Amino acid sequence: MHIDRLEFAVSLAEKAGKLGMEYFRKLDTLNVTQKGHQDLVSEADRNVETLIRQEFAKAYPEDGILGEEHGMEEGSSGYTWVTDPIDGTANFVTGIPQWCVIIACVHQGQVIVGVIHDPVAGETFKAAAGQGAFLNGKPIRTSTSESLSTGSVGVGFNGRTAITDAVNVVGALVSKGGVFFRNASGGLMLAYAASGRLIGYVESHMNAWDCLAGMLIAKEAGGMVMEQDINNALYHGARIVVGAPGVFNDLMEIAESSFSPLEVA
Amino acid sequence: MHIDRLEFAVSLAEKAGKLGMEYFRKLDTLNVTQKGHQDLVSEADRNVETLIRQEFAKAYPEDGILGEEHGMEEGSSGYTWVTDPIDGTANFVTGIPQWCVIIACVHQGQVIVGVIHDPVAGETFKAAAGQGAFLNGKPIRTSTSESLSTGSVGVGFNGRTAITDAVNVVGALVSKGGVFFRNASGGLMLAYAASGRLIGYVESHMNAWDCLAGMLIAKEAGGMVMEQDINNALYHGARIVVGAPGVFNDLMEIAESSFSPLEVA
Repeated sequence: MHIDRLEFAVSLAEKAGKLGMEYFRKLDTLNVTQKGHQDLVSEADRNVETLIRQEFAKAYPEDGILGEEHGMEEGSSGYTWVTDPIDGTANFVTGIPQWCVIIACVHQGQVIVGVIHDPVAGETFKAAAGQGAFLNGKPIRTSTSESLSTGSVGVGFNGRTAITDAVNVVGALVSKGGVFFRNASGGLMLAYAASGRLIGYVESHMNAWDCLAGMLIAKEAGGMVMEQDINNALYHGARIVVGAPGVFNDLMEIAESSFSPLEVA
Repeated sequence: MHIDRLEFAVSLAEKAGKLGMEYFRKLDTLNVTQKGHQDLVSEADRNVETLIRQEFAKAYPEDGILGEEHGMEEGSSGYTWVTDPIDGTANFVTGIPQWCVIIACVHQGQVIVGVIHDPVAGETFKAAAGQGAFLNGKPIRTSTSESLSTGSVGVGFNGRTAITDAVNVVGALVSKGGVFFRNASGGLMLAYAASGRLIGYVESHMNAWDCLAGMLIAKEAGGMVMEQDINNALYHGARIVVGAPGVFNDLMEIAESSFSPLEVA
């Protein structure tokens, strides 16, 4: 069930990652402030998404596609692909080798497929609903941590909600004996939470293309995920709390006490 | 001048990185909580440092060596090697592919050689005093950013100083329009600040093996570095503020207002 779409998404994410890497290496020869640098970044983002859209259009012409760069293209099959061609753009732009390609698929208000591919480290995290979660083909599980003092929590920071949101989370986490982590790729941090490398991830608001794949992978890896209306999230994004079962309630409390009300259109 | 020691340190860091990678891949087959996991991590740390010490003892038998795992071994040449065999241990332990090998050399109270090697991304940052800074052989420069709102600042967090130190930095930075980054390897973040990927790095206290190489590389890349008594730092560590020239004063102000007095023995 959905395995064909999962495996297709995996190969496509890896193909897109290769194209992204070509740009990443080219950028390496330019300075961040050099003329042409920003153009090349925009071209990378756009062309990687175009590649992904073209391949989906060929393989699943009736499916819809939502991407960060080109917006929503409605389909007729009831399936909608959701992609962030390059997640962690600030890293990509400056040369930090921590970014990923994200692909998810939504059907009848459920995320049914999620893939997060890191071309630098050569890691592909994947899940299909009800089928478990895998890293490079091996099953993964969320952390067995029972306490915020055992392990680190990923923290997201974005320009769409109050700037105090992330600061409050860092403060609340540290006051409870926790440690924060932020490598500026929400996709990678969700993948790390799913695979037990981090004990959880919290962010006041993420867009669908950044969060849906990671939410499914974490859930399929045994993690707990704050419930969201996925159809609403497609258009408006969502608040994200993902955690190992032993720390999820603590993370929910931190999110509630830290985040301002979500009023993102 | 010092180029022989620099080039020796580069090959050695890369050799040590290979050994570290062997352990990192082996760890991948165990769960973080599995019996034997912690033993393997300790073995990795110890054996990578032993490799580094043995090679230095062969090539420069009169030099001293200070390492995180085995402490200080005094020399007679006036040169002291300082190494963190695996920086970003929490990442290494949990499987996050963001850690590095650090080697520095101190002579007459000056850091004369610094090498930071990331075996996952295949990146080697290096500098010799007065000779410029390089990433994989190509010259690097700190950021041209003139404002905290242009670029991200690395933030260190450690168990040796007040836990509020890092929280205060995150709050101060964000209130001034800045963005924080913490991928849990101080060595990598200093290397990123040196190469303009981050606009700076601040931490209330770092040990010599974590900070000396990055301080030299950042300085040789045109960055500004808070002055420290290096001989004192060898034994007691130091406060770290490193920044692009355009934001260094702002970072010094943030550090002053955020950090509790340093009372680390």
